[in-house]
Order: sequence, then structure tokens, then C-alpha cells
Amino acid sequence: MSLIVTGTIGIDTIHTPHGSAEAVLGGSCTYFAAAAAFFTPVRMVAAVGGDFNDDYRRVFTHFPNISVEGIELRDSSRTFAWGGRYFDDMNSRETLFTELGVVAEKPPVPPEVYRDSRFVFLANTHPAVQADLLGHFPNHEIVVADTMNLWIDTARADLVSLLGKVDGLVLNDEEARLLTGKRNPITAGKRILDMGPTFALIKKGEHGAVLVHREGVAALPAFPTEIVVDPTGAGDSFAGGLMGHLAASHPPGADTSGVCSLDTLQRAMAYGTVIASFTIEQFSLERLTTLSEREVRDRLAEFQRVVRIG
Amino acid sequence: MSLIVTGTIGIDTIHTPHGSAEAVLGGSCTYFAAAAAFFTPVRMVAAVGGDFNDDYRRVFTHFPNISVEGIELRDSSRTFAWGGRYFDDMNSRETLFTELGVVAEKPPVPPEVYRDSRFVFLANTHPAVQADLLGHFPNHEIVVADTMNLWIDTARADLVSLLGKVDGLVLNDEEARLLTGKRNPITAGKRILDMGPTFALIKKGEHGAVLVHREGVAALPAFPTEIVVDPTGAGDSFAGGLMGHLAASHPPGADTSGVCSLDTLQRAMAYGTVIASFTIEQFSLERLTTLSEREVRDRLAEFQRVVRIG
Repeated sequence: MSLIVTGTIGIDTIHTPHGSAEAVLGGSCTYFAAAAAFFTPVRMVAAVGGDFNDDYRRVFTHFPNISVEGIELRDSSRTFAWGGRYFDDMNSRETLFTELGVVAEKPPVPPEVYRDSRFVFLANTHPAVQADLLGHFPNHEIVVADTMNLWIDTARADLVSLLGKVDGLVLNDEEARLLTGKRNPITAGKRILDMGPTFALIKKGEHGAVLVHREGVAALPAFPTEIVVDPTGAGDSFAGGLMGHLAASHPPGADTSGVCSLDTLQRAMAYGTVIASFTIEQFSLERLTTLSEREVRDRLAEFQRVVRIG
Repeated sequence: MSLIVTGTIGIDTIHTPHGSAEAVLGGSCTYFAAAAAFFTPVRMVAAVGGDFNDDYRRVFTHFPNISVEGIELRDSSRTFAWGGRYFDDMNSRETLFTELGVVAEKPPVPPEVYRDSRFVFLANTHPAVQADLLGHFPNHEIVVADTMNLWIDTARADLVSLLGKVDGLVLNDEEARLLTGKRNPITAGKRILDMGPTFALIKKGEHGAVLVHREGVAALPAFPTEIVVDPTGAGDSFAGGLMGHLAASHPPGADTSGVCSLDTLQRAMAYGTVIASFTIEQFSLERLTTLSEREVRDRLAEFQRVVRIG
């Protein structure tokens, strides 16, 4: 096992025009791991509270590739909880409540057995915590971080420091604009590369993603679909599919010199796009629990047809 | 010559964060023709007023493929004039003034020598006028129409009637939503197909375009560029590049049975995307007047690389 993700496990309550889901499993770490597990073993580092019952644990049994040893149980605390409502267009949402729970406490400590992790994804949290977590994986070969508006606004110096230590940054278009002051995603991406990373991956939701890389630029639309039941976790699944594919294509001992090349990342983006397109078809992780290899292969072939130029 | 475009010639005054252009040549018919002329001869049908001086006429001399015989001069009227200001993000704009001039009068009459036109693009105007103009081209093989919010709101019955007579409809995502009540572009596109056309091409500006076709769906991002000086005419150039490529690939006598196939349109979309990416690099038609075949070929190759999946 060589892929690890640090982040949040959440209990989500979600309202959409299609219906509601009460207190279902969610969180960046969870969505990332479920998507990555389709391709490769993946280790989770996150904390949960005493309210994290067997119903939630049982979801992970659908993903034998996920190692849950790094999920830290804090009996006297509560799991991070989030409530949100999507508007008619499914592209914007409002937060109804946020209960930080364990997220307001000290970060989880990765188990010693995870020390040899080679592919590291630091899901969104305070950048100083991300940097600290990274210190637990001295053999890291590829490090990708996510971030959000809150840290760009309140912890910019820590974020800039973190950017000197990662290979890639994943963020959405608004966050890229906030971080760099540049609205054009190519310009914003280049400014991010100036801060250290080899690539910046700018997510645009239903409009796809742009990869700004030292070797050039790639762009893909989202997979065109009419089935959008719950967009929660699409971005984290995208990152999980991408990193899962990267890790699976570069097993221990294999040459990883090209793992961050534009070509490799571009193909990995396509896998991330495909997995994310399944995630949004049902609430929570429902769709990913039943996803088959054949469905992924077929949709990737369909996606290749969708973006083919003559 | 077999490609014809009916639409507007305008005198534009444009303000952007990059500067201003006063009373420069514009209009849907103009941008379409200049883009299409890169691939094939193209006929223009539009009206201008007595203020349409030699400076404007001279621009057309850069495009020997454009036939201007169908430009109707009305000495005692004024040319359509439009003023607009783009905001910092270059993705939204406000109209500063609109002087309808000849556009408020009777539509231009296509010259008799244009009767044999086979590829017809009906740029945005009242759908009843579009239908009437179409009547002048009894040998039409491929007809594509553009439309806008105004006609969807005020002339829906005429628009629906027109949709029964065209092969394709080009419109932006907001217009597709207004026409169908569906925000999802795939769903909206399918509703449009139910009204008659073989395909609906939904433009999303900087986010690219989605092609909803009886045979399937295609999607392409915009060409990723940092050089956006003036977005005016991008959509019309996109359509012009697309139709110009279609017409050039199907000369008189060639089999046109596949001209509206998903594959053919998908490739044509890429050409439209590339031409539009040049249009926006300078004000008015400046960039298109100097565009070389090599530049188009190189950018198409670059675009193929940008959207390639492993």
C-alpha cells in the first residue's frame, strides 16, 4: 500500500431538488478514499467521534481496498457534521450548519505503519496541519494538496509555505482567483506554479477542469450527464480517482520519474472525471459502493469519444 | 460558392479592461463570414446604412473569400450600431447603447445569384425573418440557425416553427435554458431535438461548448488562453469556423449524407473553437485579418493535445 489521504470524515445532511439524505457518510477523506480504492489500496487518516456508529463503519466494508486503521476514534467527541442545501441548478449550495466536533481538536496522528506511504493527498484543512501531516511520510514521492477559501484568507503564509513542499495543488476556480488575484485560470495556475508546485489543477465543477503544468496546459469538460442527484464529494472523488490511477500505474519499484508528467496527469484527470461522474448519481457513497470495473471502463471509453477531435 | 450567412453588420464601440475600440466593424454576419472565409468562399446577406464608409469596406479586402454582393446599401439609413463594456472578468458585459438603424427596417433581399447556396447559416434575427430568408435558398442542404433571448421571449411560436426547418440550432446555455426550461445542457439539448433539429450546439463561452446530437453527445472546453482582449464575436466566429469547415469538407458534388453526423460536427466544433480563440486576441476583426493557415493548423494540433486522454 502506498497511497494515503489525510482529511475529514463527515456526517452529512443534504437537501437537493431530488430529495434529502439525513446524517449520511461523507467528508473529503471518505470520498477521496472511496474513489481511489477503485484503483489501488488507500490509507485513511482522519478522526471520528463517539457518534460514528456501525452504520457508518459498515459503508467501508464495500471498499476492501480502504485501510481504516488510521481512523482515530475519540469517544467523548463528535464527528464533523455538515448540512447543506443545493439550489435548483445543482451548481450552487448553501451551508445549513457546520459542527466541527473532532475537527476543532488536535489533528489525527498517522499510525507508524503508514510511514512508508509514497503517494500523499492532503485533503483540505489548515495548511500548517497539512505540512505537519506530511512530515509523517518521509518516503513521499508525490504530494498533492487541496485547500479552500478559508485558509487562503486566514493562513496565507502557511499555505504558501506548504506550496513549496508539494508537487501539485488542487483547488476550484474561485479559490485560484482568491489565491492569485487572477481570474483567468491559466494565469492563476502559472502564479501557483511560481509558488513551487509542478502543477495546479483547477476544478470548475460542471464545466470540467484545467491542468496548468510546467510542461503545458490540459483541459477537459466534465463528463456530460443528466444524472446529478447529489454533487457532494465530486471534487474529492475527482482527486481520488486521479491519485488512485497514478498510484496504481506506478507500483513500488516502478520508475516514478514520469508520474507528474503532463501526459500522465492528463490521463489521470480523465479517470478522476469519470469516477466523479458516478459519485454524483446518488447520495453519499451509494453509487460508488456498487460501481463495477466494467462501468468505469465503458464510461472512460465514452468520455474519450465525447472529447475526441476527428 | 455554397456557404451563405444572413445576419447583421454592425458598427461596434467596445470598452474592455484592455482598452477601447470606437466605431469598429462588427456584427454577427461579419464575424461569421470572416471566420468561415478561412476555409471556404462565403456569401454575406445583410444591410448597411449611408454611414458605412470605405474604412469599413476596406476590412473585407483582407478576406478575398467573402462575397459582399449581398450587402444591401441603404443610403438614407444608418448601420446597426452597438456599444458595450466588458467587466473585469471578460465573461460578462453590459450594453451601453443599441441603434437599430437598418435592422429596424425590412430585411435584406438575397441576390438571385445566391439562390444555389447549399450551406445556410441564419444568424440571430427574428425567427420569422430567418424562415423567410431560408425560402430564398431552395437548394439548401444544411441549415443552421442562431437565436437569442429576445426571440425566445417574444416570438416563441415563430422560433418553434423555424426549428422544424433547420438541421441545427446554435445558442448559449442561458438561451437553451430559457427555451426549454431545463438548466442541464444535455436535457435542454434533447428538448430542442424534440422540436426538430438534428443537433443543438450549446455555447458556454470560456467553458467551451456541448453538442447534443441524435447520435450522442460531444463536449469540448474552450481553447485555454490567457490572451482575451475582446470577446465580441467569439460565438459567431465559432459558428463560422464550424460551418466553414463543414462546407470546405463537402464541395459541390461530394456526398453530404454524413455532413451532419456527430463525428463530422465534432471535428468542425474544434475548428470553430480554434478560430474563436484567435478572434478574441484583438479588437474587432484585427486578428482574423492577419491569421495564417499555419497558425490555425498549429493551434488545432495544440488543442488536440490539450484535450487528449492518454
